[in-house]
Amino acid sequence: MSELIERLAEGLPEDALLTDPDVLASYANDMASFCPAGAPTAVVVPRTVEQVQHTLRTANDLRVPVVPQGARTGLSGAANATDGCVLLSLVRMDRILEINPVDRIAVVEPGVVNATLSRAVNEHGLFYPPDPSSWEMCTIGGNIGTGSGGLCCVKYGVTAEYVLGLDVVLADGRLLTTGRRTAKGVAGYDLTRLLVGSEGSLGIVVRATLALKAEPSRQLALAAEFPSTDAACDAVCRIMEAGHTPALLELMDRTTVRAVNDMTKMGLPETTEALLLAAFDTPDPAPQLRAVGDLCAAAGASEVVPAEDQAESEMLLQARRAALTALEAVKGTSMIDDVCVPRTRLADLLTGTAEIAERHNLTIGVCAHAGDGNTHPTVCFDATDEDESRRARISFDEIMELGLRLGGTITGEHGVGLLKKTWLAEELGPVSLDLHRAVKSAFDPHGILNPGKLF
Amino acid sequence: MSELIERLAEGLPEDALLTDPDVLASYANDMASFCPAGAPTAVVVPRTVEQVQHTLRTANDLRVPVVPQGARTGLSGAANATDGCVLLSLVRMDRILEINPVDRIAVVEPGVVNATLSRAVNEHGLFYPPDPSSWEMCTIGGNIGTGSGGLCCVKYGVTAEYVLGLDVVLADGRLLTTGRRTAKGVAGYDLTRLLVGSEGSLGIVVRATLALKAEPSRQLALAAEFPSTDAACDAVCRIMEAGHTPALLELMDRTTVRAVNDMTKMGLPETTEALLLAAFDTPDPAPQLRAVGDLCAAAGASEVVPAEDQAESEMLLQARRAALTALEAVKGTSMIDDVCVPRTRLADLLTGTAEIAERHNLTIGVCAHAGDGNTHPTVCFDATDEDESRRARISFDEIMELGLRLGGTITGEHGVGLLKKTWLAEELGPVSLDLHRAVKSAFDPHGILNPGKLF
Repeated sequence: MSELIERLAEGLPEDALLTDPDVLASYANDMASFCPAGAPTAVVVPRTVEQVQHTLRTANDLRVPVVPQGARTGLSGAANATDGCVLLSLVRMDRILEINPVDRIAVVEPGVVNATLSRAVNEHGLFYPPDPSSWEMCTIGGNIGTGSGGLCCVKYGVTAEYVLGLDVVLADGRLLTTGRRTAKGVAGYDLTRLLVGSEGSLGIVVRATLALKAEPSRQLALAAEFPSTDAACDAVCRIMEAGHTPALLELMDRTTVRAVNDMTKMGLPETTEALLLAAFDTPDPAPQLRAVGDLCAAAGASEVVPAEDQAESEMLLQARRAALTALEAVKGTSMIDDVCVPRTRLADLLTGTAEIAERHNLTIGVCAHAGDGNTHPTVCFDATDEDESRRARISFDEIMELGLRLGGTITGEHGVGLLKKTWLAEELGPVSLDLHRAVKSAFDPHGILNPGKLF
Repeated sequence: MSELIERLAEGLPEDALLTDPDVLASYANDMASFCPAGAPTAVVVPRTVEQVQHTLRTANDLRVPVVPQGARTGLSGAANATDGCVLLSLVRMDRILEINPVDRIAVVEPGVVNATLSRAVNEHGLFYPPDPSSWEMCTIGGNIGTGSGGLCCVKYGVTAEYVLGLDVVLADGRLLTTGRRTAKGVAGYDLTRLLVGSEGSLGIVVRATLALKAEPSRQLALAAEFPSTDAACDAVCRIMEAGHTPALLELMDRTTVRAVNDMTKMGLPETTEALLLAAFDTPDPAPQLRAVGDLCAAAGASEVVPAEDQAESEMLLQARRAALTALEAVKGTSMIDDVCVPRTRLADLLTGTAEIAERHNLTIGVCAHAGDGNTHPTVCFDATDEDESRRARISFDEIMELGLRLGGTITGEHGVGLLKKTWLAEELGPVSLDLHRAVKSAFDPHGILNPGKLF
């Protein structure tokens, strides 16, 4: 038994320390394509803060890398094992410790599943907005590490806006408490926000105080069909310019619509080039939906179909939620990008992506949180076809390059991980990268926390 | 002429470098009470980023402290001179560079006055929510440095939530760009949020990209009178628990109401112990105002008076906005605190503050952003009375200690500066303080940026 395993075992119950090679292999990856995973030495599955502290102290003493993991639904390889590392899986720290409807906060452990929390707060008339596609599986800790978004963001923002305070185990095992449980607070540096989206490279979140909203009315949606992606993006700009605040504003291109139909037999309109979904969750959404429908028509929509009722609304949203799985089914493998541009440049991103697809003879479906300018161009390819795989990888990089050229960012909500590491350096530039390294050193002098990710 | 002045002059136009002793003295303070100011060596008033870079490079080479300043309306001494420092006043960098209604952003220089920006974006149907009391004078750069709030926060949050990206001159003169101009983005560490509220201790903001909202409907308010602060706080809790999202929810205690009447002759109801103002900016606020009125009555309100129209609403808000000036007029000097507690503890904070006032035989008026739990207990005293001044200072500390005991923070929106430096250490604890120091060193290795403030 190695010194690492021996020392870990001293402070962990037997069932919290896994070393069986098959088990280790099953923990090595998240859901990203094209990201290599190393061979871990151990998986630690703690139930208490003290067990996390023991693990970090041990790893720090022995200079062993620690890779934190939630449900491993991430799409950037941030949770992939590095050789010789300890994988620290937080999924068993899954208690909701408090839900307070007056202070509108929840206090949770990192392993709580997003949907579990959402449903629990709903019972108190409250609302936890962040809703990534993987919400039935992904954990709040993972959401915090990645800075996850979802359909809700155009109105409600991303995960970061709901994190008030954190308990974090530092690389050397000390426990840091950041932030607050009050609605406001500006005491000292905002270490909370520095930790959100840091992909486990600065510390391990072991508790989070989350802000909640009052539960809004149920959404009512409309669908609008467009003869071109340009026209659909024009509608998006008109809607936002007119001052509307939809609860979601989503776009699916023709490839995506067909893929969804093939998988679900939903019968969405396949002859259209782009389908736009808008929804409002105000007490009386009818006037807003009418106004948005008129703006879609003015932008050239061939048809505007308001949902008859909430059941029809929900069906439209299910179609959108099925998009990524459907695109994956097209050719067996998919590679999902996450480029976000200013809304005014959305049409350019879609046109440019279509050109990239044509040049490389690839199928690239685009679904987008259009109201945010956050697109998910998804390259569909056959992973057994070496040349197609190569072209898929090239097109992926070209889309990021296009996004940066349009004033955008390489990631709106999925994070950097391994997948976009070289692109992050491109986006940040040398001064920011220097400061990133200095901040990393301040938190983790020996570089044991998720090394080799991000930058 | 000292080496500092000589070298500064090499890269600055004549009118950007002030050394006249009377002028220096006039720049030495912000609006905080009880905060000493040192004697500056020079005031630099740059118009360009390059001039800021030159100033920082020079100061860094010579290890001279640099204290950044906006309109010096701050209430914590963060902008006070330290001995021998360069005061860097950003007020002449006051251009609004862009307002984009589709992307819903504004790009501004730090010296733009809050009200100037607010009115400029209004003309495009847009809304910049942060509205500190000093909004007609204070600058966006100062708001970013402090993390300012205002009346809007219960619905719209604080300044931090509107800062998407920054251009920042670092201590060594390099230009750092953080963040984005997209609606979403999670690429790398959130250095933007780390800088917001850092009180000039990490870098000098020279440009900001701000998120805007669509302009809401005009507010309609109601006023409710309560026989005790306990009952008013109970109403606040009931309103928030019922899921309402008022655009403001403000409380004034009897001392404050009287002070406002004395100054403005507004004729607010003086026999009541606490006056609560609630407003909504939804298209149809009537049902919400009725529901909130009912909740106030259930909590024991002696009278609930909805505003007849927007003019009456505006008058009520003016009364609230006049509160601090009115309290200052009571005894000539006031010392305003900024303690924020969880809403569920608001009543305890008000009761405790009344006890502190009684124990020290002091007049302490409380106005509060009650919906946020953010209170401004304001000690009214005669600065020429040495003993009363001493008791004022003691009571101020006791209120912060009470706030921390109730699970709150020492500052909801005013910042730390000099005034609350020892209390920040108390709130953060040793681990967080260590990390604050390490982050500070990462940005400013020679410690030239606003030294001696914050921690």
